[in-house]
Amino acid sequence: MKFRSDLVLEAKELIDEKRASQMEAADQLPEGVFADTEEKEEYRVTRIRIESPEAAAQLEKEPGTYITIELKTEEISSLDLQKQIAHTLSAEMNLFTEKLTKEDPCVMIVGLGNRSITPDSLGPRVVDRMVVTRHLKGNEQLRAHLDRRMGTVCAVAPGVMGITGIETGAILQGLIDVAHPDMVIAVDALASRKTSRVNTTIQISDTGIVPGSGVGNRRMALSQKTLGIPVIAIGVPTVVDALTMTCDLLEKATGKEPDEDMLERLSDTYGSEMIVTPKNIDVAIERMCIAISNGLNMALHKGFDTTDVHEYLM
Amino acid sequence: MKFRSDLVLEAKELIDEKRASQMEAADQLPEGVFADTEEKEEYRVTRIRIESPEAAAQLEKEPGTYITIELKTEEISSLDLQKQIAHTLSAEMNLFTEKLTKEDPCVMIVGLGNRSITPDSLGPRVVDRMVVTRHLKGNEQLRAHLDRRMGTVCAVAPGVMGITGIETGAILQGLIDVAHPDMVIAVDALASRKTSRVNTTIQISDTGIVPGSGVGNRRMALSQKTLGIPVIAIGVPTVVDALTMTCDLLEKATGKEPDEDMLERLSDTYGSEMIVTPKNIDVAIERMCIAISNGLNMALHKGFDTTDVHEYLM
Amino acid sequence: MKFRSDLVLEAKELIDEKRASQMEAADQLPEGVFADTEEKEEYRVTRIRIESPEAAAQLEKEPGTYITIELKTEEISSLDLQKQIAHTLSAEMNLFTEKLTKEDPCVMIVGLGNRSITPDSLGPRVVDRMVVTRHLKGNEQLRAHLDRRMGTVCAVAPGVMGITGIETGAILQGLIDVAHPDMVIAVDALASRKTSRVNTTIQISDTGIVPGSGVGNRRMALSQKTLGIPVIAIGVPTVVDALTMTCDLLEKATGKEPDEDMLERLSDTYGSEMIVTPKNIDVAIERMCIAISNGLNMALHKGFDTTDVHEYLM
Amino acid sequence: MKFRSDLVLEAKELIDEKRASQMEAADQLPEGVFADTEEKEEYRVTRIRIESPEAAAQLEKEPGTYITIELKTEEISSLDLQKQIAHTLSAEMNLFTEKLTKEDPCVMIVGLGNRSITPDSLGPRVVDRMVVTRHLKGNEQLRAHLDRRMGTVCAVAPGVMGITGIETGAILQGLIDVAHPDMVIAVDALASRKTSRVNTTIQISDTGIVPGSGVGNRRMALSQKTLGIPVIAIGVPTVVDALTMTCDLLEKATGKEPDEDMLERLSDTYGSEMIVTPKNIDVAIERMCIAISNGLNMALHKGFDTTDVHEYLM
Repeated sequence: MKFRSDLVLEAKELIDEKRASQMEAADQLPEGVFADTEEKEEYRVTRIRIESPEAAAQLEKEPGTYITIELKTEEISSLDLQKQIAHTLSAEMNLFTEKLTKEDPCVMIVGLGNRSITPDSLGPRVVDRMVVTRHLKGNEQLRAHLDRRMGTVCAVAPGVMGITGIETGAILQGLIDVAHPDMVIAVDALASRKTSRVNTTIQISDTGIVPGSGVGNRRMALSQKTLGIPVIAIGVPTVVDALTMTCDLLEKATGKEPDEDMLERLSDTYGSEMIVTPKNIDVAIERMCIAISNGLNMALHKGFDTTDVHEYLM
Repeated sequence: MKFRSDLVLEAKELIDEKRASQMEAADQLPEGVFADTEEKEEYRVTRIRIESPEAAAQLEKEPGTYITIELKTEEISSLDLQKQIAHTLSAEMNLFTEKLTKEDPCVMIVGLGNRSITPDSLGPRVVDRMVVTRHLKGNEQLRAHLDRRMGTVCAVAPGVMGITGIETGAILQGLIDVAHPDMVIAVDALASRKTSRVNTTIQISDTGIVPGSGVGNRRMALSQKTLGIPVIAIGVPTVVDALTMTCDLLEKATGKEPDEDMLERLSDTYGSEMIVTPKNIDVAIERMCIAISNGLNMALHKGFDTTDVHEYLM
Repeated sequence: MKFRSDLVLEAKELIDEKRASQMEAADQLPEGVFADTEEKEEYRVTRIRIESPEAAAQLEKEPGTYITIELKTEEISSLDLQKQIAHTLSAEMNLFTEKLTKEDPCVMIVGLGNRSITPDSLGPRVVDRMVVTRHLKGNEQLRAHLDRRMGTVCAVAPGVMGITGIETGAILQGLIDVAHPDMVIAVDALASRKTSRVNTTIQISDTGIVPGSGVGNRRMALSQKTLGIPVIAIGVPTVVDALTMTCDLLEKATGKEPDEDMLERLSDTYGSEMIVTPKNIDVAIERMCIAISNGLNMALHKGFDTTDVHEYLM
Repeated sequence: MKFRSDLVLEAKELIDEKRASQMEAADQLPEGVFADTEEKEEYRVTRIRIESPEAAAQLEKEPGTYITIELKTEEISSLDLQKQIAHTLSAEMNLFTEKLTKEDPCVMIVGLGNRSITPDSLGPRVVDRMVVTRHLKGNEQLRAHLDRRMGTVCAVAPGVMGITGIETGAILQGLIDVAHPDMVIAVDALASRKTSRVNTTIQISDTGIVPGSGVGNRRMALSQKTLGIPVIAIGVPTVVDALTMTCDLLEKATGKEPDEDMLERLSDTYGSEMIVTPKNIDVAIERMCIAISNGLNMALHKGFDTTDVHEYLM
């Protein structure tokens, strides 16, 4: 019943905390989990690889690779930092794209979420800023005039089930069947347990993604298993669920989990519809959107820098 | 090379004009074309049925049924007129939907065009205002609580090829393959030859539609032939191509078609990118969008009136 | 240092709570405060009049009249409720407008807040939906053709100091000096202490308003005292400050106010920039905006109903 | 009755054309008009000074200085060109700002036009991108921490009379009275006679400006004469009036002005509400808005380059 975090880093932290309280070494990872961290002045990159099923069970996350880029500041506070994040994202994406052995592979960017709910609009907005080329590559004449650095990219924002009436996973399957990409990169807004992560953390993983809460339980995961091609998920927490935050807080303040009674009372107060978010969410999403889309464009169009991206998107 | 009108009514008018100048009876239709007109105070409904291939060739339009709702005013100038247009559209749609013999057929609304270019945004905006139910109908529990008047509707705005990198027809094929609708209703903004038609004419036909100008010539028509299910197209002229308008005008003023030289000069001036449109295009599109979406919702959810639609869309 | 609520109702509740815990009669109001409540099925209207300076001091609110319309539902959940709220607001406004004894007085609607921050955009959006007539009334010829029900209304959205570089109060003074209205009605988004009030409460008062947090402390109150004409303030809580909510919650959970240490820790976590808001804030603001603007238009253009308003705003 | 162009360059061209047809030297200017032109690869800067009242009468323009920046391309087609235009605009503005002898003068940017009509939204959008400082300069403490390059700038978008109910000139007068700027720079979208000028021409002048068509004839010019301080107007043609374009065209095609009869017929067809505009008007306005706002920010905050501007506007 409790709200779960979409971030593997938070799963690891929960374990670390539990351990610390058990007087164990906080830096000792579960068997089958490999992690390394790279510190930069304004951000940090953590790479976690979950190999064993046991570790996966312990962390409640799928086995696979998780890369997290964490700002040390409260937001992307300068153009320079925005550019650094874009370059870092681009470099980290190589870990995944270099596995595509086919010459000139086709990558499909999928922007998940609802364009008209600001904190949920990250995915569709990243799609708007992709330099797409698949339709040009498919045309003999146009291909000849194309910037040679350009890879083959297509991009879709399938919408959410409440708007389309169709399961997002099904739409995606239909699009893959006709466009035949070699890899999907799905971008989505996530929920976090901590306000400090909101708009400051980017998680990249090769384990797929489950689109935002749907009707009933039959939501289809978007992953290599369900879609048949590699699915790289890029997620950014843009909100904290108000109920979750409150429960966490009470637990800390009182030293024990809120009881049934309290939970019900809190649940009445916040419903499932109250979120915690920065006041300047529009600006924060825009900055994150530029960092991610620039990073993806540089990763997929080899040799592009951010100026090239802006030039093509003018 | 010259710009073509998307409206069958204009094709018929061109013939009528030519004839009139040949002293023929202007009201005599080509063999194989049947037409009737219903006059209302503020608008007129014309139904044209092109049956013979010869008539189709003469009008340069596919054989099929074309229904045109024409405002006599310059725009949808009152709430009452907006409501009348919605009801008329709803009633005329019956001609097409009643051919679906299956119990509770599924209809997919497709909003063609580019959401971020105002005169091209009609289709996606109509999609935003559809009451979709397909995902609820598919769920035993939810279906039980559903308003019994509701039909099965899904709705997608596939975007344009320049944004997605995928041919719109291909996207649509992929979506049909996974959602299995029994009919597609495609809504699109059109070009007209006459400024008087802009935002005053709605054309409905069962002959399909070709999405807006793409790259190269391999644009795929959206029709029963290509998609395998009935495709009803709803089009509204929202712009006049400036070059076309100018050529028509010169022809009238001088009594002869512009020669090669003049055409080139005009073409230099207007490029292919200048359009003629009302100053208040944002408002005009919004009004048309409400009329059409209300009409479609009433046609597909039997017993709805406009208040029901607004209630569900709140 | 603690965040204050903009709602007089919350001030009264705080007192009531304190009293209740002191075993006093919860329904006994401070001397000099008069209150009455009208219950409807889906909402309640409370009118509070603070007359004595002592009562004002006790409630930490200015002396004057405060009318609160409170939804019993979580949001404006139907067109019918939206209409009822508009009519109620219109009727309550009479209490203030009937004091304008001049024939055909001019009323200036002022939309406070920042149009590009969704939860702060209520004021400017209400301005967009006002039927303005002042410029028509001033023109002999146009006045003759005007709907006789129309009052004299102008409307401005002065922007926020961070965007204009000018104190909002100063801008307003400048506008009043040139437009000479007889009354200002200022609409603004507020903060509440309780998530249950967000987008469910409308507070109307004749005590003026202080525009959202500015730079330094020299923010000028907008009131009859500072502007020289009656200022009616209409406020709707659209957010809860995350830090305030958390402090309140901890106090309830632990039975005591958070100490300095805890406050600092919380302050670090939420900064001053995290807010609690409904996920569907865009929709909620839009519904509230329609209810308020319809209510104001009906109050100022005597005899208008909501259809008249929609007709003029088409 | 005929539509007039807002561009002095077009006035001069009309004269030049008339002369050329009278076999006079096309480059001979009327007495009292001084002009020089600077050619760059992708654009050209023309400076025209009208000194004598006779010349002013002949050109139907106020005496004063007019600077025109004309693109040789169809639009701002690259980031580099956008930057060049910004720097050129910044440099040319010096001609006007250097006349402000006061130390640290205050400049008010005024964005004329209607934010919600795309081709009319240039002014308000430029205002959104100004780095405003007036409120910071006025605060001892904040001023100390301010970037020393910063001038004193405030910025307002007063809206249009149809939305506010107040004459734009009156609003501006009220704002000047409270903010006490030393100069107004008013930015507005204009109409041109030629499609080739749309979004390719920037006109800067010190003769003031008349806000877009109002009700009746009592529109107040915004100029040093009416407002008491220097008013620099920056205008960009974003549309061509369809009726004007058509008349011009017919005149050229037939060699004579359209007669009364034809004018009436054309007037019926286009009303006063049809405009000619590029299909990608949203993008074109955005590019122009960035060029102008960057230029103004660099002109008013000495030592800023475009990166500084973007940094402050992030």
